[in-house]
Formats: sequence, C-alpha cells, structure tokens
Amino acid sequence: MIDSKHIEFLKGIVGAENIYSDKAHLIAYSYDATRTRYEPDAVLFPRHEQDISDILKYCNKHKIVITPRGAGSGFTGGALPTNGGILLGMEKHMNQILEIDFQNMVAVVQPGVINMDLQRAVEEVGLFYPPDPASEEYCSVGGNVSENAGGMRAAKYGITKDYVMALRAVRPNGDIIRAGKRTIKDVAGYNIAGILIASEGTLAVITEITLKLLPKPKFTKAYMGIFPSVEDAMNAVFKSLAAGANPVAMEFLDSLVVQALKEKLGIELPESAGALLIGDVDGNVSDEVEFQLEILDKSFRENGAVEFIIADEGEDRDKLWYARRNASPSITIFGSKKLNEDISVPRSKLPEALTRIYEIGDRYGFKVPCFGHAGDGNIHVNVMVDGSSPQELEDGHKAIEEIFELVVDMGGTLSGEHGIGTSKAPFMSIAFNDEELSLFRDIKQAFDPNNILNPGKMGLPN
Amino acid sequence: MIDSKHIEFLKGIVGAENIYSDKAHLIAYSYDATRTRYEPDAVLFPRHEQDISDILKYCNKHKIVITPRGAGSGFTGGALPTNGGILLGMEKHMNQILEIDFQNMVAVVQPGVINMDLQRAVEEVGLFYPPDPASEEYCSVGGNVSENAGGMRAAKYGITKDYVMALRAVRPNGDIIRAGKRTIKDVAGYNIAGILIASEGTLAVITEITLKLLPKPKFTKAYMGIFPSVEDAMNAVFKSLAAGANPVAMEFLDSLVVQALKEKLGIELPESAGALLIGDVDGNVSDEVEFQLEILDKSFRENGAVEFIIADEGEDRDKLWYARRNASPSITIFGSKKLNEDISVPRSKLPEALTRIYEIGDRYGFKVPCFGHAGDGNIHVNVMVDGSSPQELEDGHKAIEEIFELVVDMGGTLSGEHGIGTSKAPFMSIAFNDEELSLFRDIKQAFDPNNILNPGKMGLPN
Repeated sequence: MIDSKHIEFLKGIVGAENIYSDKAHLIAYSYDATRTRYEPDAVLFPRHEQDISDILKYCNKHKIVITPRGAGSGFTGGALPTNGGILLGMEKHMNQILEIDFQNMVAVVQPGVINMDLQRAVEEVGLFYPPDPASEEYCSVGGNVSENAGGMRAAKYGITKDYVMALRAVRPNGDIIRAGKRTIKDVAGYNIAGILIASEGTLAVITEITLKLLPKPKFTKAYMGIFPSVEDAMNAVFKSLAAGANPVAMEFLDSLVVQALKEKLGIELPESAGALLIGDVDGNVSDEVEFQLEILDKSFRENGAVEFIIADEGEDRDKLWYARRNASPSITIFGSKKLNEDISVPRSKLPEALTRIYEIGDRYGFKVPCFGHAGDGNIHVNVMVDGSSPQELEDGHKAIEEIFELVVDMGGTLSGEHGIGTSKAPFMSIAFNDEELSLFRDIKQAFDPNNILNPGKMGLPN
Repeated sequence: MIDSKHIEFLKGIVGAENIYSDKAHLIAYSYDATRTRYEPDAVLFPRHEQDISDILKYCNKHKIVITPRGAGSGFTGGALPTNGGILLGMEKHMNQILEIDFQNMVAVVQPGVINMDLQRAVEEVGLFYPPDPASEEYCSVGGNVSENAGGMRAAKYGITKDYVMALRAVRPNGDIIRAGKRTIKDVAGYNIAGILIASEGTLAVITEITLKLLPKPKFTKAYMGIFPSVEDAMNAVFKSLAAGANPVAMEFLDSLVVQALKEKLGIELPESAGALLIGDVDGNVSDEVEFQLEILDKSFRENGAVEFIIADEGEDRDKLWYARRNASPSITIFGSKKLNEDISVPRSKLPEALTRIYEIGDRYGFKVPCFGHAGDGNIHVNVMVDGSSPQELEDGHKAIEEIFELVVDMGGTLSGEHGIGTSKAPFMSIAFNDEELSLFRDIKQAFDPNNILNPGKMGLPN
C-alpha cells in the first residue's frame, strides 16, 4: 500500500499533474478488456525514460508494486494492477512516433503509440508495418510487444516479435538497458529484446521500440472459399499452404458463426456454407496475386470447396470481409457470455482439434462457435454460456480447461496471441512442467529480485 | 581439472566408446575456425538428451566446466574449451534430421545436423530453409542457433532466429526444457527460445531444434552491378532497398577485393569497376523476378552504376557469383594474415562507415579490403597484416578496436553474424554499458549459478 509520503515523492518525480490518486481515476484505470477490475493505489504518467528509471528505483527500494499499462486493451489481464500499487500509464506522454527512417526502413516509437497510428504513418511514405491485432485502432505498440501480439496478417507476415529490432527498457533497479540495434543482423550479447517480448511487463518497462518496416505491397485481392463442413475447410487450410500458397491472411468461420451471421445480421451466404475461409493475397506484381489465387482455388476445390470467390480491393473486398469482421458480435445468439480463448495448434492438427473441441462443448451442452486465424493455426474458441448462471459459468470454465488440455496434448499452446496474464495463469501447469516453470521464476528473479514488476502474472509468484 | 574418477563416472553415462581422454584426440578437438587452441580434459559424445542431462547434472555437482561443440567451424571461439573440462561433441550421435513435416512446413533436427544437409533434405520435398552461412557445407545447425548465424540470403529471408520455432535444451542442473511450439504463434510463458538463440552455449545445451520452412521459390536470377566507387555502390545498396527492391542477397566487393580478384585469380572485370554488388532475386512468378531486377537496374544506374548484368540460373549465374565466392581467398595479396571482423551498421550508414574504416587502415598503413552482405548492412572488414610481425599484429588489433568504436558510434554492432565468443570478448565494453553487462551476468547466473557452461565467453566471468 502506498502512503502519502510515497505519493509526495512520486509527485516530485513526474509533477503533480502526472499523478492520480483520487477514487474516480483509480476506478477508471482499474480494468482492461477482460472486464475484471483491480484498483491501483496511484496512476502515474511518466514524461520520459528518466522518469521511469527514477520511479522504478524508488519503488524497488520501497518494494512498491508497479504495473505498466499501454492502452489497457489486453484480453488476459496483463495490464491489471492485481496487487494495487502503481499503474504506470504510457498513454499521456510516452506516445510519440519518434522517427520513421525511410532509408533503413525502420520506425522508432514510444510504447504508448497506437498500432494503427503507426501503420498509417508508415504507409504514408510507402512502407508497411504488418502486425494488425483486431484491436489495432486502440491498442498500443508497447502492449503489442509485451504480449507479442499477432493479427490477421500473421499467416504471411508473422507477429510482433518478427518486427522488433531493438528495445530500450528500464529494469526494476532503475538501470536503463539498450537491447538490439537498427541493423538486420546483431549477435553481440544476449538477446535481451527476445526475452522482453511477450514478458507481459514482468521483467522491465519498455520505453522505446525500434521496428522493422517492409515496402508496401502494390497489389491486393481478397478471396472467400465456401466449404460444406468445418473439416473440409480445415483440411484446405494446411493443404493449400503446403501446396505453396502464401496468403496474407486465411481467416476461418465455422458453421455456428455462419449460422449466427445469417440469423443475427441477415448476411446472405449460400445454403451449402458450412464453413468459410476468407483472406487476402498480395504481391508486387499482379501475376503474383494471380499465382496465389490459383493455388488457393485449386487446393480449396480439391478439399471440397463449393465456391471460390475473388474480390478486388475496395467495396467488393469489404463485402467479403464483412462476414469475418462481424463474427465476434454475431455469436451472442448462442449465449450471453462468451468464454473466449485463443488456442493455437500446428495447422495440420486443425481438423482433429476442431472436431474434439466441439465434442467437449457438446458434452457440457454449450455451443462453441470458432473462428480466427486458421492460416497460422490460431483459432478463437468461444464457449458460450448464460452469464447469469453460476453453474454454466463453472461448467464453462471446466470445458475451457479440457480444451487447453486437448490443445497442449496436440502440440499446441495456451495462447496464440493474447498472452497469459491473469486469465490463463491457472492453466500454466497444463502447458509447462515443473522444470520449465522453475526456469521462468529464475529469470523473473534475475531481472526483478524484489518482485515489484507486475507480480502474479503468467503464473509467477505474487 | 578432471580426474580418473570423473572419467569413469562419465564413461558409465555415455559408454567407453563415446569418450576420449587421450592426448591425440584432445589436440584434435582443441581448435575451431579461429585457429586458436585450448585442450579439453575429455571429449564426450552424448547419445541422446538424457545423456546430456546426466552429464550436466554430474558436472554441475562437481563444478566441471563444459563446452558444447557443433562442428567447430565458428569464427569467434564459441566452441573452444578455454577452461579445459569437458567438450560435448554433437557430431557423432546428435546429428539426425528427426522429421520433415511437410504439412506444417517444419523440420525437427538435432544440433549436430550439417546446415547444407538440412537445406538439401527440405529442398527435395519442395521446401526451403534460407539461412546459409558461408560455412554451410560443414557448420552445424546447433552452432547456427547458438551463434544466430546469418548468411547471404539474410537480406530477404532473415537469419537463424527468424526460423527457430522451438527448442529443447538442458540446463546446467540437468533440467530438460521445452521452449516454443510447432505453431506460428505462441505467447505462453517467457520466450526461452529467444534468449537461448545467440547465447553461445553459455545458458543451456540445445538438444533439438524445430525450424520453420518456406515454400521453395520457383524462379531465381542473378545480377551484378558495376560501380566506379565504393561510395556509389554503398549508396545504391540502401537506396535500391528503400525503393522497394527485396533481393535475396546483395553482396558487396570493394575496390581492393576487385583488384585482388584480377591480380590473383585473373578474373576479368571492367577497367571501371571500383566496387561490385552481386546477388540473386527470386519469386514464385517470373514477373516478380523482373520487377525486382527493374528496381535494381534503375536504382543502381541512378547511383552511378556503369553496368548492370543479369544472369539466368546455371552457368551464367555461377560466373557472376564466382567473383564473390573468391573474395576471401584472393585478398591474401595484401598481407599474410587477415584480422577479419563482421561488423554491421544501419544500411544508410554504409557509405560513411566504409570511408572511415579505410581512413583508419590508412593511418596504420594497412590495406583493409571489405566485402560481404551489404544488403543487410553486414560487412566483413579485413585488416591485412604481416602475420610474422608482432608489431603489425599489435597495430592491427589497435586498428580493429578503432573500427569497433566507430561502428558502435554509428549505431552498429560488434558482430553481425559471427558472435562474440573469445575473440570479441575484450570489446564488449565498447558496445555495452555497465548496466547492460550486469544484466548479462544476472541472466547467466539465473541459468547457470555454478558457471559450468562455457564460462568466459561473451565477456562473461571465467
């Protein structure tokens, strides 16, 4: 717990205008996209890296807990101040695009920059930053790095970690660390940037991010494959990719989502549509786009597709993507509350994984509509329950646990892109053995011996 | 020092046929590509992961130092047993390609697999493993991961770390750790694979590597740009890339290398050739290849190229590449010993970096022929000295130190792809401040509290 003496000292660092300790603000900063609430004792808005260093040094000495926070849009509680203490907000001052280096195709940003603001800024100069989480309009790049966020374009372009060239960060003892370089190759010293990515703010506070950019591809088209069944669509995913397709995105909607889109939103889809694959292909030349579409068309039809639709950029493309974009809001017809997990399995295991996930749902009597980034094996699994029924909530969580056990057993992961945070922490022992969990604790201890940075996340000690 | 009691116990683990402690073998395993020699006390060839766990557990208890070794082809001493102890050889048993999973485009290999054997095996089924260090015919994939090896194709395809999906490894205490998954996305737990890559065998012994593969591109052509000066060529590098070119490779030969190729090997090159850029472009469709060549042609000419030559696959391509392949052996005309460093700077800094490196060489009276992977900013800088002159050797090392200071000052790195090992360890304090070096020590301590794994490398304590 922070007392007034601490508040005064911290005011001296950031200035009175950059600290909140009144109830209204503490409530306003108590939640993230998990909709669970934990009030911090104070919210601080550091003005620069040195502020962060000074704050951490002080808190480390007084064993005051700190939770870094980007936009608070995380799905697993990574930015929740579960132990109170200080919430370190990056949104107010640490939100600048510091540089777009066109010559080296690199952007340097502060952690509070909104993902889409970065995408737009680099596209203005003909460059391209691929990672596009669904929350791109409001999530922060610092949060993206801390959770190693993915997105639709991961099938071709990879995830956040594939774009981080360098970081600056502050250790809990106040030490300012530079990790990585503005060079494609750098093998001097331990890969500190590598371990900070996806560490959910538990090891250091990221203060600056250097990102690799790409040339913007010149041509894009969208496609939709209509399949009679989920199994057909899932087979088409890995078989088309193994046949050489390299689509930007390959998004999947299952039979329940198709049903929901028709019933709730009146979207017209063929009677025969039991599952959809929707995505984009791109290239520097139109022949590359056509090459990709030909492979997809052929592979999809060989795996049972009844239709393969192609759309140019613009309105036609938007129409194809409309179904995908409305998947999440449509499925509430199956239950007032969704227990949403973002599992990932090797792509060839998708057909079996989906079959067995539906079986688990059936056994509990829940609908489990699934959709997501099939092209990279990452599926959003939604166990739909009546949120007003404690029994259904309890059973829903049991179903989730069974799904995790299944996924890990099939060589998959608890989380493809959302992270562990608080919401998946109870399941860590399904995915990791004692030796692995012990290594995580040793690493945490090495960076943060007083356990002041975001304790209790990722199954680490509170 | 290992006594006979230790040897007997270790024999009991791996069998008498898998341990050497006789002088001849200790000498045979005392060196790597740095040509420096340190004899181990014993060479062990573990048969499998469990052997490695048993060996480490025993050595950890008795504080016996262990150096893991792939093919011993490293340029910076990473696999040298500088403190004696046990050399852990992966070449005899841990050298299998365990699986090529075509459906998920993944290969699973043991650390002793030779890089080129893997490349050939995956190409046979139409897949592609891009990392291609110059030593690809004899270096091991385990060594590649431990040093985060690069290669020619890094300009387009990145480096080893971009292909590592998962690792298995053994900690010094014998704990077997699985890190990562056979999935594109995995954000559960700390990125252990990320920190093991490039850690030079100082944190854990890697026992299995899961690698991402790509579809094999269908079309390739080679190109050569002939420039009047190094500065023109260096400008053409970053300007062509910023103009949207994405060549597989963009290799650079400077004026001295051009001179050496003519004088020593009689290679015919235009009188006007002051520097060369040589590389490949590839694509799934021939239009993509042509698109790339057009950008290069235009950008190269805008930056002073007097000629731009294109070659199809086969003999013509081999002819263009012949100059690049013979760069290293040709430059001995400038001195009997080369002090070879693989610096890397942001690409836009290449023109200035080269100018200033030559100035340093001039000041000491040394020729400094430079060549290498300009497309990713990684240049092999060769300070040529008379190896029989202690004075020249001493001055040569002073020149190298000045070059490192320059490179770091320009935002570059001590090593683009060779690692730190022993040979660059004295320069770590040029690149890293006390806080960063202290973090490296803390991480080392977390993994290996008894400091038994490859101590003294990377500037870490002996």
